[in-house]
Amino acid sequence: MSEKRFAAATEQNLFRIFTIPEEADSTLARIEQEISNNLDGFLRDNIVAVEKPLSEIEQDFLDSVIPEHPQFVSDFADDILAKLIAQSVHTSSPSFIGHMTSALPYFLLPLSKLMVGLNQNLVKIETSKAFTPLERQTIGMLHRIAYGELQASPQQADDYYNRYMHSAETSLGAFCSGGTVANISALWVARNALLRPDGAFRGVAKEGLFRAMTHYGYQRLVILVSERGHYSLGKSADVLGLGRDDIVTVPTDENNKIRVDVLEDIILQLKADNAGILAIVGVAGTTETGNVDPLDKIADVADKYKIHFHVDAAWGGATLMSETQRKILRGIERADSITIDAHKQMYVPMGAGMVLFKDPHSTDVIEHHAEYILRKGSKDLGTHTLEGSRPGTSMLVYACMKVMGRKGYEILIDRSIDTAHYFANLIANDPDFELVSKPELCLLTYRYVPSAVQEYLRHCSDEDKRVINELLNDLTKFIQKKQRESGKSFVSRTRLTPQAHSGQTITVFRCVLANPLTTRDILHEILEEQKEIARESWRSLPAILEKLRS
Amino acid sequence: MSEKRFAAATEQNLFRIFTIPEEADSTLARIEQEISNNLDGFLRDNIVAVEKPLSEIEQDFLDSVIPEHPQFVSDFADDILAKLIAQSVHTSSPSFIGHMTSALPYFLLPLSKLMVGLNQNLVKIETSKAFTPLERQTIGMLHRIAYGELQASPQQADDYYNRYMHSAETSLGAFCSGGTVANISALWVARNALLRPDGAFRGVAKEGLFRAMTHYGYQRLVILVSERGHYSLGKSADVLGLGRDDIVTVPTDENNKIRVDVLEDIILQLKADNAGILAIVGVAGTTETGNVDPLDKIADVADKYKIHFHVDAAWGGATLMSETQRKILRGIERADSITIDAHKQMYVPMGAGMVLFKDPHSTDVIEHHAEYILRKGSKDLGTHTLEGSRPGTSMLVYACMKVMGRKGYEILIDRSIDTAHYFANLIANDPDFELVSKPELCLLTYRYVPSAVQEYLRHCSDEDKRVINELLNDLTKFIQKKQRESGKSFVSRTRLTPQAHSGQTITVFRCVLANPLTTRDILHEILEEQKEIARESWRSLPAILEKLRS
Repeated sequence: MSEKRFAAATEQNLFRIFTIPEEADSTLARIEQEISNNLDGFLRDNIVAVEKPLSEIEQDFLDSVIPEHPQFVSDFADDILAKLIAQSVHTSSPSFIGHMTSALPYFLLPLSKLMVGLNQNLVKIETSKAFTPLERQTIGMLHRIAYGELQASPQQADDYYNRYMHSAETSLGAFCSGGTVANISALWVARNALLRPDGAFRGVAKEGLFRAMTHYGYQRLVILVSERGHYSLGKSADVLGLGRDDIVTVPTDENNKIRVDVLEDIILQLKADNAGILAIVGVAGTTETGNVDPLDKIADVADKYKIHFHVDAAWGGATLMSETQRKILRGIERADSITIDAHKQMYVPMGAGMVLFKDPHSTDVIEHHAEYILRKGSKDLGTHTLEGSRPGTSMLVYACMKVMGRKGYEILIDRSIDTAHYFANLIANDPDFELVSKPELCLLTYRYVPSAVQEYLRHCSDEDKRVINELLNDLTKFIQKKQRESGKSFVSRTRLTPQAHSGQTITVFRCVLANPLTTRDILHEILEEQKEIARESWRSLPAILEKLRS
Repeated sequence: MSEKRFAAATEQNLFRIFTIPEEADSTLARIEQEISNNLDGFLRDNIVAVEKPLSEIEQDFLDSVIPEHPQFVSDFADDILAKLIAQSVHTSSPSFIGHMTSALPYFLLPLSKLMVGLNQNLVKIETSKAFTPLERQTIGMLHRIAYGELQASPQQADDYYNRYMHSAETSLGAFCSGGTVANISALWVARNALLRPDGAFRGVAKEGLFRAMTHYGYQRLVILVSERGHYSLGKSADVLGLGRDDIVTVPTDENNKIRVDVLEDIILQLKADNAGILAIVGVAGTTETGNVDPLDKIADVADKYKIHFHVDAAWGGATLMSETQRKILRGIERADSITIDAHKQMYVPMGAGMVLFKDPHSTDVIEHHAEYILRKGSKDLGTHTLEGSRPGTSMLVYACMKVMGRKGYEILIDRSIDTAHYFANLIANDPDFELVSKPELCLLTYRYVPSAVQEYLRHCSDEDKRVINELLNDLTKFIQKKQRESGKSFVSRTRLTPQAHSGQTITVFRCVLANPLTTRDILHEILEEQKEIARESWRSLPAILEKLRS
């Protein structure tokens, strides 16, 4: 075939790609059908159980040259089935309890496909039309469940949301790709509000941080958060022009909650040192242990010193849905801003974060316009968001709220906390495990410590404790990796410094019990498997203990 | 039914939602089937042609209370079909040529569903496994097509990418939700590199911007970009702690390209004023006219003054794929960082931005770690990204590169530019239209100016010109809105200040000809429709002209 005829044939094929769907018996159509019929079955059949080392997987992804010529879709589909899907992670498996992932409602699969087919761009109304009011309503509903009780009556609340939900000038919040962008957005608003225009100074947004701090006479600008705050806060500080050192961490109590007494001492010291305090961040669901700060008490302090109060409820925000459990979040309605990740316990796929603002005028300080879109007075969502072009993911959150209802969420949240308590009891009652942090939301941490070792630890010297804990750290790491690699189940691990261990940092298993399909049997099996691995691997334990005793 | 039995029934239904797929004859299954069989047909049948005012659409999205009880999926599906989909925008229509949207390859629909079903989280390997090397390869391939020629030979290039593509310590770039986050990421890296640790000063990332500028003795920190730069750069400046005033705009020539001579004058002035220059941004595809800055010449200046050179190729980056057209981007390989949006001319759905870094060590200055993930030495992608949890969207870019091949992209890019030239000729040869900006990539701008008015404008006074142009601005705005509302086709509009109009700001139609399904017939029809609207609406024109003449 001549080059020219080849090009013509390619062009025709290309045109087909844009117009003609896959044949019903193609590999891709078959994959799709299997996903539709039985997602869990498809994933179990196609993801290999036993983990391949990453360095081996990488061998299939080495070519750095974009292929010159097209590949048939069916060949491509076979390829990724063997190389990508086989080596991906079954994050929705009921025995994958190591991270904040879960099985998802089935209807989200066809809806996601619809979303992609519609391919709206939420930055502006011209490319999203009804998706814009839908997103505003989604944000409005979550705003109301967080802040609604600030209104004197349901009628006043209705009036309030009628006024603000679809307003062109203000914003109840922003949808974004995830919790990190939500946290950055909230702290961006807080920074610009603190360093607002003042006399001849035209505000940080126009003049920048250097002049702003000079104008206000601050030597330093800080964010206060407990030592359990998420790592994205350090990143936010860096991005926003503070330093990572300007995240001032406040110590926590034995339940991983911020010590409000110390918080206040620190504020007084900072004020004496001429530092500006950009925000106090309350953690509503620490990533590692799932504990929630005493938000009401933090709000008192924030009120007293007139400091922006942000709540990072990326994980815990969904708990607002449960009338039984939302007391854990008491005080959240006093926060100036709240981060919630819908892709965590709102059971929506990856890529759905939100920030809410108590005061719909908050976002005035970050408002921006352009000539071709986002014109003044328009209702384009892009005037108040950090991101620009964005997909219509809010539709999936909207769908879940409609189809499951608040009650449905309540059942899921309550059940996840019940399951966590069940697992905690199981661990606490097993002589070979040590429960390190109790569940408040559906997270807990623990480690494997054979009963003999537990017994020894109770009486031994500090130096022995240190040595044994280091051995146990290695053991925990080993068990966690081995269990992951053998592919039946997955817990994650982290490092904590619990008061019960007199300040020694220990490695622990970390579990998130959010998946409604995780049964009690699975939890028993996970512990059994861990014991099995431990017993097989730590044959030398008796000898070590003997040595320490002698 | 008692409250308890009701709750039990709800719980059972909920469980079903997580485990049992939609029936084959459910509304959602039917929607899905129709999308699979004929997406364009489905959208045409279900999106209403004639536009409803936004205020009316909002009536369907007023409730601010999350529904208490669940809704059947089928009822929900009927609802959104009538209220959401009917009032959404057919962005993939061949006659929707107003924004950077297009028809997409069909195979992306099942692949997107697969992506959602797998629900990987790319922040870390534990929740993404093979998706991590896949994303690194995707970034690597685009890095090589942008920067590959910097390597002395293909063999050296292979060695280079073997070394860096899967390296734990370095990063060739980052995948992100879109061009704005990509631009912020690039400028974040540039800021942290400029204000790096130096002696006792531990760098801006740790100590913040105020101390950094004090240490380096800068009075101001600026970003240089042409007056056609994207609005996200102002936002980036604000977020990163510079002011919006610190975006120093450089004038453009008659082709909307930065004037490099003036750029250099400005740099000298800024240096004299003790300003730090964070970056020069070259625009590779201005949003409004699609023109590309002389990147090679900017690179000379950036080299001379040792300034970070960033190229915002969110739109134009895909042009690298075309051997015929990539000369437009000459010099891009000298940029320190490049933004490319795959959801623009790489034909991937919304939510796929990328930033590339010439030097894989660039991202050292933003590297971060945590205890439970992103541990030092790990290959977790989250150590070098602004975002945290992220979906596996890079798979869709990977798929397009594999299935269409570089040649496939070349055909699409070349064709889009051909189409733009065809349309430009059509406009230029029609006595009732004025071509305002010629296409360089596949964008152009124009306006409707009846031939009699064009004739009059050639000879009239400046004051008359001003008056007529203002009338024409209103007319352009009117035609654009009317055409959009009547739903057959869509062009966007923007405001430009072309030299040919002696500095008067005029309103113009803006077209993006990226959709491979946009035929020449459609372009003829769009002009005809515009003439029709103009003739019907501007009956008073002859009288106005008469009045001006007299």
